[in-house]
Amino acid sequence: MERSSVSPLYAAIDLGSNSFHMWIVREVAGSVKTLAKIKRKVRLAAGLNHDNVLSEEAMQRGWECLSLFAERLQDIPAERIRIVGTAALRTAVNADTFLAKAKTILGHPVDIIPGEEEARIIYQGVAHTSGGSDKRLVVDIGGASTEVIIGAGFDANALTSLKIGCVTWLERYFKDRELTAANFDAAITAAKTAIEPILEQYQQLGWDTCVGASGTVQALQEIMLEQGMDEVITLQKLKRLQRQAMQYERLEDLDIEGLTLERALVFPSGLSILIALFESLQIETMTLAGGALREGMVYEMMSQMRHHDVRERTLNSVKQRFQLDAIHSGNVAATAAALLQSCQQAWQLEPQAACLLHASSTLHEIGASIEFKKSGEHAAYLIRHLDLPGFTRAQQLLIAELLRRHREQITSLPEQHALSAASATRILRLLRLAIILCHRREHQHQPPTTLTVNDNNLTLSLPSTWLAQNPLTQAELMQEATRQTDMGWPLAIEVQDEQTDSE
Amino acid sequence: MERSSVSPLYAAIDLGSNSFHMWIVREVAGSVKTLAKIKRKVRLAAGLNHDNVLSEEAMQRGWECLSLFAERLQDIPAERIRIVGTAALRTAVNADTFLAKAKTILGHPVDIIPGEEEARIIYQGVAHTSGGSDKRLVVDIGGASTEVIIGAGFDANALTSLKIGCVTWLERYFKDRELTAANFDAAITAAKTAIEPILEQYQQLGWDTCVGASGTVQALQEIMLEQGMDEVITLQKLKRLQRQAMQYERLEDLDIEGLTLERALVFPSGLSILIALFESLQIETMTLAGGALREGMVYEMMSQMRHHDVRERTLNSVKQRFQLDAIHSGNVAATAAALLQSCQQAWQLEPQAACLLHASSTLHEIGASIEFKKSGEHAAYLIRHLDLPGFTRAQQLLIAELLRRHREQITSLPEQHALSAASATRILRLLRLAIILCHRREHQHQPPTTLTVNDNNLTLSLPSTWLAQNPLTQAELMQEATRQTDMGWPLAIEVQDEQTDSE
Repeated sequence: MERSSVSPLYAAIDLGSNSFHMWIVREVAGSVKTLAKIKRKVRLAAGLNHDNVLSEEAMQRGWECLSLFAERLQDIPAERIRIVGTAALRTAVNADTFLAKAKTILGHPVDIIPGEEEARIIYQGVAHTSGGSDKRLVVDIGGASTEVIIGAGFDANALTSLKIGCVTWLERYFKDRELTAANFDAAITAAKTAIEPILEQYQQLGWDTCVGASGTVQALQEIMLEQGMDEVITLQKLKRLQRQAMQYERLEDLDIEGLTLERALVFPSGLSILIALFESLQIETMTLAGGALREGMVYEMMSQMRHHDVRERTLNSVKQRFQLDAIHSGNVAATAAALLQSCQQAWQLEPQAACLLHASSTLHEIGASIEFKKSGEHAAYLIRHLDLPGFTRAQQLLIAELLRRHREQITSLPEQHALSAASATRILRLLRLAIILCHRREHQHQPPTTLTVNDNNLTLSLPSTWLAQNPLTQAELMQEATRQTDMGWPLAIEVQDEQTDSE
Repeated sequence: MERSSVSPLYAAIDLGSNSFHMWIVREVAGSVKTLAKIKRKVRLAAGLNHDNVLSEEAMQRGWECLSLFAERLQDIPAERIRIVGTAALRTAVNADTFLAKAKTILGHPVDIIPGEEEARIIYQGVAHTSGGSDKRLVVDIGGASTEVIIGAGFDANALTSLKIGCVTWLERYFKDRELTAANFDAAITAAKTAIEPILEQYQQLGWDTCVGASGTVQALQEIMLEQGMDEVITLQKLKRLQRQAMQYERLEDLDIEGLTLERALVFPSGLSILIALFESLQIETMTLAGGALREGMVYEMMSQMRHHDVRERTLNSVKQRFQLDAIHSGNVAATAAALLQSCQQAWQLEPQAACLLHASSTLHEIGASIEFKKSGEHAAYLIRHLDLPGFTRAQQLLIAELLRRHREQITSLPEQHALSAASATRILRLLRLAIILCHRREHQHQPPTTLTVNDNNLTLSLPSTWLAQNPLTQAELMQEATRQTDMGWPLAIEVQDEQTDSE
């Protein structure tokens, strides 16, 4: 029996203000593998009255959902289960009534976590699924609260939970379901007032990158991609979406390309809160985080998953899961890095280029784990669909397109948003060369090459004796020179005649 | 470093009459993984004159190709390299001249194998990649010879190499490149004459299934699939293809849907030989083998790959390569088999149905190893493209379509050729039920069910106490009953009231 058969199950349950979620996972080769995801729209927050009393009906909906979850929890030991309640349960004055019966149903206690603890766990979810070690601003807009965090690496420095949420803001500022400027203004202004108290502290701390970690941000990104924009959220794009929304009179008429029915109801309220956050905190750009509360709960239980470099952890896991040859993939990555080094002064590529070349060279054989002949196509399919913590969606898509073209015929790269078009083409050229140079798979057999660069013209020089001893690699390099040159990317293979050199 | 990094390389080189091939592989989790495939059209047979002297030019082409192969062979120990020469080298009177220099270039001797040895290795290639333990007739049409073998399991009982081949028959009977009835007749008649001597022995031995293991048969199957026929080759279909070919006057005009340019030249000669084999040996149906000479060479070197049940070896390897939960997949397979058992008397499914239900239930979680949400789609992609020795192409495609629908919404199965449409739908229904019944993943938690069947109407009965304790499974079963019934496949979930039963 293989090891994975006995790797234990974990369950993370999140009793949110809008939905209850259960996520059952196990660790497989350093990755979190989903075995089941069960979600029920319990709408707990909608059951709170003006005195914050949770209605009997809302509690009943919650208990019914928990009895479904309970079935699966029976098979998981207590130490691998985490159940948390958030804003709606924090607010409900009669939460104890709900909790007592919930514990009986689940066989496990529900932990109503303070807003700051929610923020802390969300940050862990982001830290374990994001690349880079920059100082981050993390924003998570929930149904009844919004968490705002600043941290670096795995450490959060500022944790705040604000009492603004896309469900509560919907009920408060879009109760008439009208998409008027007045409603938007009121919603944005009120959110700004709520953000006001943390402004000074957060601006003082500062941050390098900003990520959004919630359904609202995910929905916005999906709309943008659907409409052909790139994945980076800016205030300008948010305002454009607000204008699009205001072309409709009422919420139920809303028909924005890429907006799902499920998300439409809380779209204007979530958008208003995000605009307020952008304007108050002067956020320039935001990308989607790879995880939030539930991921934080799971990664904290799986303590071995903490890795100083999330991208490296991901690459190692994928290598292991797809039985890639670690030595060979390391050779190709090192060769590609050396080629890049030769060009860096002339090309001045973005810092991300090296990381993407590293990832694609490390994983270049992944498609062959399905089948050799169309391995480029298979690699692209796998990379597009695998969960790759540490890489943004745009980076993931570019790696997929690089690997689609890692051998055989070259075609132009499609439009992508991870690098400039010129840089993407350049790392593709180096990736292909590195793969050919490592075909013999053993590091000691790699040729002593010199790569010289003049704008887009590459010249790869190799000793004549080495080429004579490796006629297959020579034939492949010659073919590659033709292929790249035919694409308008001049590549020359230069034979260094050692005799002449020593004269 | 993972184990796979150090799993050794193997090389199989086949110096054929038309092409030279090098195949470099390694064993990964009980599967043969291709690392490189290099092929050059050396056309050795075309360099033989009437006195069977191989021309200097032909030898030169061969040596050049071998010097390319030699580069890679340096990194593989001699005991994991096998190099064989076949018909053209068997025939060449000056083969020694070729061999001497070949050995110097390669650093390894070339083994010119007798026709019977070629037939024996081809049979091993078929046996290691085919399911079932039936008595098989194996046919491999090469450039200058055709091997005909009868065997069962891993043992061949009759081995013959006939001096007919698609290259020699092209030069002999289609030298004028005309697609006339006269040319076809001459080619077919001559092939029949060559087959004549083995007829009595082969008909006496007899066989249950017939597989074809060569480019000719593969090309024919591709044409049939392209033209919307199923994968089973029959004399009727071969005659239809002959009629299609005869609509063109000359070989260079040939434009049959699904026929590649590369294969067109030897298409009429290969087709003639196959028709002769069908008519002489009275073959009713033939399917494509999963391997032949090169596979036989590699599997013989990897002696641990010999497994009494090739399909089971394949399923075990895929489970391991994709880190499937072996216990859970075994539970689902056992549950599915038990459900099938309840229906078998009423449904009388083909014997293959149980094997396909077993394979799809065993691999049902493969898609989730890529990503959970679209796991059905991913499973279909993987199964379509993986090399699955032991399963025919049609079976592989049906497993893919079953797994595309293993959970969530059901859609009708597309046309397929592995089972009758009714049987395929029926095993899909059982597969989905088995998966739901095993959701708790531990065998001891499965409900005591009774499945009763009346034509297409299924009734699954479960004890009321079990359902009350497992409300999530109950909800899923109820939803499944609606889904199957909506498809026109009535499914009822019956609650057995234990109180009432005991009255």
